[in-house]
Amino acid sequence: MPPPDADIYATASGPAKAVVDAHSTEQSLKLYSGWFCPFVQRVWIVLEEKEIPYPYVEVNPYHKPESLLSLNPRGLVPTLKYENKPLYESTVICEFLEDAYPDHGVKLLPADPYLRARIRIWIDFPGQQKDKTIWDVRNVFLDTLKEFAEAMDEEGPYFLGKEPTLVDYVVAPWAVRLWVFDHFKEGGLGIPDEGKGAKDEKSWARWRTWLGAIEGRKSIQNTTSGKDHYLPIYQRYADNTAQSELAKATREGKGVP
Amino acid sequence: MPPPDADIYATASGPAKAVVDAHSTEQSLKLYSGWFCPFVQRVWIVLEEKEIPYPYVEVNPYHKPESLLSLNPRGLVPTLKYENKPLYESTVICEFLEDAYPDHGVKLLPADPYLRARIRIWIDFPGQQKDKTIWDVRNVFLDTLKEFAEAMDEEGPYFLGKEPTLVDYVVAPWAVRLWVFDHFKEGGLGIPDEGKGAKDEKSWARWRTWLGAIEGRKSIQNTTSGKDHYLPIYQRYADNTAQSELAKATREGKGVP
Ligand SMILES: N[C@@H](CCC(=O)N[C@@H](CS)C(=O)NCC(=O)O)C(=O)O
Ligand SMILES: N[C@@H](CCC(=O)N[C@@H](CS)C(=O)NCC(=O)O)C(=O)O
Repeated sequence: MPPPDADIYATASGPAKAVVDAHSTEQSLKLYSGWFCPFVQRVWIVLEEKEIPYPYVEVNPYHKPESLLSLNPRGLVPTLKYENKPLYESTVICEFLEDAYPDHGVKLLPADPYLRARIRIWIDFPGQQKDKTIWDVRNVFLDTLKEFAEAMDEEGPYFLGKEPTLVDYVVAPWAVRLWVFDHFKEGGLGIPDEGKGAKDEKSWARWRTWLGAIEGRKSIQNTTSGKDHYLPIYQRYADNTAQSELAKATREGKGVP
Repeated sequence: MPPPDADIYATASGPAKAVVDAHSTEQSLKLYSGWFCPFVQRVWIVLEEKEIPYPYVEVNPYHKPESLLSLNPRGLVPTLKYENKPLYESTVICEFLEDAYPDHGVKLLPADPYLRARIRIWIDFPGQQKDKTIWDVRNVFLDTLKEFAEAMDEEGPYFLGKEPTLVDYVVAPWAVRLWVFDHFKEGGLGIPDEGKGAKDEKSWARWRTWLGAIEGRKSIQNTTSGKDHYLPIYQRYADNTAQSELAKATREGKGVP
């Protein structure tokens, strides 16, 4: 079998390439990234939305370079260097960016403590998926997406209403990868089609409204690479033959990347 | 086999009993609790430390009453009713209490965004343990405790230094249950004894300093029940015969209670 990273394309492509190319100047904050990683994309979207300057540094977390390990003993992307100090864990980094750059671009958390808490209940649900293959994940995930849709503000289009908040951005990277299910299995993830009179049509209609809004955001489009380059990564999970670090990471509870 | 909750003692006992008895007056905030639950204890400690008034309501989450389910579709404790609106997930509730009661008692998060993020990296590590029995958990847990100790401020005694912060309180409920390992297995969890010249003696010395400080806090002592009443709950995990809802919850990733 090829090494775990043999199939991972080396750099961002598609729309994300231009963003990477535009972010090479040194700043007090530096992003160590893997272009393919949904946990990275959370942070990347937030950097773009808040218009925080950062150089983008591509590393392969399955061939951990010393530059990554010296900052993050867990050796995972995303990792941040901020004023020469390390930070990691995608949700922690996102909250940090909101805390440390209060006057940069948009606010991603509402001021009201109760609404902040409602958002945080949902902030890490995709990162919590622990199963081994995308097929193990499928049913739990489908139920959870529906609950997520049901927890939203009724009108939307975003989770809390007219304006996007942190929860929209940290869930988005999984939402924009759902086509992977369609690619590998007829019927895909199984979200009912519009107007088919599905039992939970109201919830799924709300989901579709949210997804449309998410897919329309420039920050999300511009941190997404070409589809072809994602496929070899998910092929592994679809095949359920992964004996790689990638699968090990998943089994250890780091979630399906 | 007896039903999953057959062995769960119905109410708080030991030092926790007095605190429960003192918290029966209605307030704008109400805690739905299980006396035995470490996730509950996180919230309970924070309520005590911040001196926030609350009535304590004991519910059995394995026999979910409608009063719980109507607030929290997940049917878990802790659940909060705040101005007639529901909140759940222990870490979310803790951050909420800090947000919503900024002038009550002590501050649990530092003002510096970087330090807040360092704390959040460690905030949920015990809640992430997903294995089936306490013996599966043992080795991963031991390694993680050591890393946790190594991430601390060198002098302490608390994680960030002289004053306790949120991370100390959300990890504490697991720390004060470590005696369970000693009870069920000779050699216990395997933390090296002091002065035995263990390889990582410096890290374990720091752990012991932290644990001593934690065990000395009134808020932690006063939210702990009599040891005898915890044992039947952990017996199940130790036996590895659990066919109960309790084990199911664990397998579904809700962590070892
Ligand atoms: N909990 C982490 C997960 C990050 C993660 O798992 N990143 C993957 C790539 S998508 C990685 O770096 N994997 C390398 C490895 O598992 O060794 C976060 O939220 O940042
Ligand atoms: N992630 C939740 C976990 C809470 C939890 O698992 N509570 C347990 C008791 S320790 C419970 O309510 N179990 C009932 C069940 O699993 O149905 C939190 O952090 O609040």
